[in-house]
Amino acid sequence: MSTQETNQSVANNDLDYVFHSWSVQNQLKPMAFKTGKGCYLEDFEGKQYLDFSSQLVNTNIGHQHPKVVAAIMEQAQLLATIAPAHANKTRALAAKKILEIAPKGFKKVFFTNAGADAVENAIRMARLYTGRRKVLSTYRSYHGNTGTAINATGEARRFNNEYAQDHIHFFGPYLYRSEFWSSTETEECQRALHHLRRIIECENPASIACIILESLPGSAGIMVPPAGYMQGVRQLCDEFGIMLILDEVMVGFGRTGKWLTLEHYEGVTPDLITFAKGVNSGYVPAGGVIISEKISDYFDDKIFPGGLTYSGHPLAMAAIVATIDAMREEGMVENAARLGAEVLNPGLKALAAKHRVVGEVRGLGLFWAIELVSDSEKKTKFTAADMNKVKQLCMEKGLVPFIAENRIHVAPPLIVTEAEVQKALAIYDEVLSVFA
Amino acid sequence: MSTQETNQSVANNDLDYVFHSWSVQNQLKPMAFKTGKGCYLEDFEGKQYLDFSSQLVNTNIGHQHPKVVAAIMEQAQLLATIAPAHANKTRALAAKKILEIAPKGFKKVFFTNAGADAVENAIRMARLYTGRRKVLSTYRSYHGNTGTAINATGEARRFNNEYAQDHIHFFGPYLYRSEFWSSTETEECQRALHHLRRIIECENPASIACIILESLPGSAGIMVPPAGYMQGVRQLCDEFGIMLILDEVMVGFGRTGKWLTLEHYEGVTPDLITFAKGVNSGYVPAGGVIISEKISDYFDDKIFPGGLTYSGHPLAMAAIVATIDAMREEGMVENAARLGAEVLNPGLKALAAKHRVVGEVRGLGLFWAIELVSDSEKKTKFTAADMNKVKQLCMEKGLVPFIAENRIHVAPPLIVTEAEVQKALAIYDEVLSVFA
Ligand SMILES: Cc1ncc(COP(=O)(O)O)c(C=O)c1O
Ligand SMILES: Cc1ncc(COP(=O)(O)O)c(C=O)c1O
Repeated sequence: MSTQETNQSVANNDLDYVFHSWSVQNQLKPMAFKTGKGCYLEDFEGKQYLDFSSQLVNTNIGHQHPKVVAAIMEQAQLLATIAPAHANKTRALAAKKILEIAPKGFKKVFFTNAGADAVENAIRMARLYTGRRKVLSTYRSYHGNTGTAINATGEARRFNNEYAQDHIHFFGPYLYRSEFWSSTETEECQRALHHLRRIIECENPASIACIILESLPGSAGIMVPPAGYMQGVRQLCDEFGIMLILDEVMVGFGRTGKWLTLEHYEGVTPDLITFAKGVNSGYVPAGGVIISEKISDYFDDKIFPGGLTYSGHPLAMAAIVATIDAMREEGMVENAARLGAEVLNPGLKALAAKHRVVGEVRGLGLFWAIELVSDSEKKTKFTAADMNKVKQLCMEKGLVPFIAENRIHVAPPLIVTEAEVQKALAIYDEVLSVFA
Repeated sequence: MSTQETNQSVANNDLDYVFHSWSVQNQLKPMAFKTGKGCYLEDFEGKQYLDFSSQLVNTNIGHQHPKVVAAIMEQAQLLATIAPAHANKTRALAAKKILEIAPKGFKKVFFTNAGADAVENAIRMARLYTGRRKVLSTYRSYHGNTGTAINATGEARRFNNEYAQDHIHFFGPYLYRSEFWSSTETEECQRALHHLRRIIECENPASIACIILESLPGSAGIMVPPAGYMQGVRQLCDEFGIMLILDEVMVGFGRTGKWLTLEHYEGVTPDLITFAKGVNSGYVPAGGVIISEKISDYFDDKIFPGGLTYSGHPLAMAAIVATIDAMREEGMVENAARLGAEVLNPGLKALAAKHRVVGEVRGLGLFWAIELVSDSEKKTKFTAADMNKVKQLCMEKGLVPFIAENRIHVAPPLIVTEAEVQKALAIYDEVLSVFA
């Protein structure tokens, strides 16, 4: 591979050798980026792009944060890798800093490589703690893509883990496309809770280990739960002895203007919290489970039948410590709250008012969805072809968008400035005008 | 946390905040290591340990290899993270270098974070390619610990992945504790193949997507398959249209004295190969699937319903490129082959001859098991308490062992010298003498 790369030559090499996630391989048209800085990415021909995707909603601190890069380099020089069984200084510090962010009553952290295995282990803990098998989650959710390796495993580590069935799905609240014929947020909330209670009753409450919910459903559409919903779910869990897992993989670590999105729901404390992405902005793969005292204590004298080679990887841990420090020092969570409320929220509402094709905008902090519809009465979703056009137009105008189904997800780094938000809003405005 | 750490203070911090894999939490006595170099680790009090575990059999290049550390630092300064959808120069190069190591007829690489998700995606590919559901694997195998996240996921990405049942297990060959009443390797081979054929026939051959085998079963006991077994499995796969997945997570990248362990089995080419650990010695979490041409081509015009946030993470990729280069430049694979055959093999055989408690030693290259038994007639396994004593004695004498059930797994970095192997053999000898 030559040192005089063009975007095309890098993309071609990629297409020759690399198999891509979630794709039809011969329809790929990957963008090539050479480097980045803050809210910007730069391609191999010097063009700058405003990154309003934060990649897969993970680079909360932006690209190439010097403090985090330095921490990774320092750890790499001291001890790049060590097995999870051995004590590691940076790992303990990372766990301590995460526990400082968690609500009161959380005691330990189990580290994983990413989001899916965080969810895996949280569910494992809930099932073992309750002695029940079933797991409830919403249809409009994404919790990761693993489902079979432990079943392929033959030896005894499989025994406590043969659980992959016994997943039940229900509908969460989403007024814009209500499954409950609701016309107000209050009605949607009440009916969604009624529906969940009926599912619990009909599935046998005593068989249900946990309910896992994204604190704010992300990839499925950034659907902010109506006031009271999360409290209602917590009450149902308490009534039936069900563990509540809140999945903060996408919305944790400042994304919605609080350290954890669950802080928006007064009085709601889950039993387990899953995290990844924002915890170190994805600079090194990492995820994990924050474990409440009662569940942590339960495993004091019982074997926990879960594990992975890179649990608590030193480089990932160093990046976590530096990321949390940098976020605190630079007030990134506060910036996300302020710019979200004062600039992004009104800016997107103005776009919705102006453009017929915007069915709804909704979100919290620096995490918003623009739902695009070709018929606003019928709420007909934009086609894949139209969404491809939206993406192309954004890229041409120098913005990396996050496209999901018929939506643009707006998710800039938390260090974004007011001027950058205004610039992005102007680009979205121009792009939407094409579909007038 | 103070800067004047002792081993105990670091271990205490760890125990306060970190939840451990595969353990009863209140029985943990973690070792604390500050740094490492080559085959050695150093604790917080300056004591040096010979690492004959390679951690979880991953640090094939040893600790803190300067070339790989430098590559991680360089990539961290250029671009620490980027989403998998975008083309990345280092990722393409890593894939190319892995494909150069793979047998002929392999075309693309799908990257994951580790071993479990490599297995997940290989099985997913085999199931989609064949349109069949069942997966066969051996009882004495370990393929990772994930099994449920995609079932918790509610949205459509679940549809093509609701496969977690339909796993069937069979017995692989293992003469020392034969499941087939065999008395020779040849008999064990024939009977194990007969058994596998009967399982295939009785499970309905047309329902079986794949057989997944460790190229050399590792954590379950380092059981080198008898001559002809792997060829026989390949033939059965061909006869019934079943995909063969070889799991090289633990034994790939030089561990047994070849780049891939499958090279020991003449004429055996799998359809998919899984890797992790040795690919970059675990300096940054990484794994993946090497995909044969026919399966790669199959997905050219069909959606692949699998993915993960950190697929092809730049830091992991940089570590892969530098690791493969370093291994080639320094002839590590050749060193493993030579020292394995000329020093470790005869040395361990001598220990077996000398010590009554050694039931069997077996292995290949720099990957050996010492099976410890209290009664060599009845092959009674050493107790957990005895194995704990073995571990403590090794540590006291300055060697980090790998202990699994009633076995010591001998797995030094591939850069080990003859003197270091002799030193380790002397330590094992002393420790075993305690149980005379
Ligand atoms: C809420 C949530 N949970 C879990 C995951 C899975 O994370 P990963 O892709 O790191 O496995 C994601 C990924 O987008 C997510 O958004
Ligand atoms: C053969 C094999 N496959 C898969 C795995 C799982 O790898 P990981 O722990 O990285 O998920 C292992 C781990 O030891 C392994 O040895």
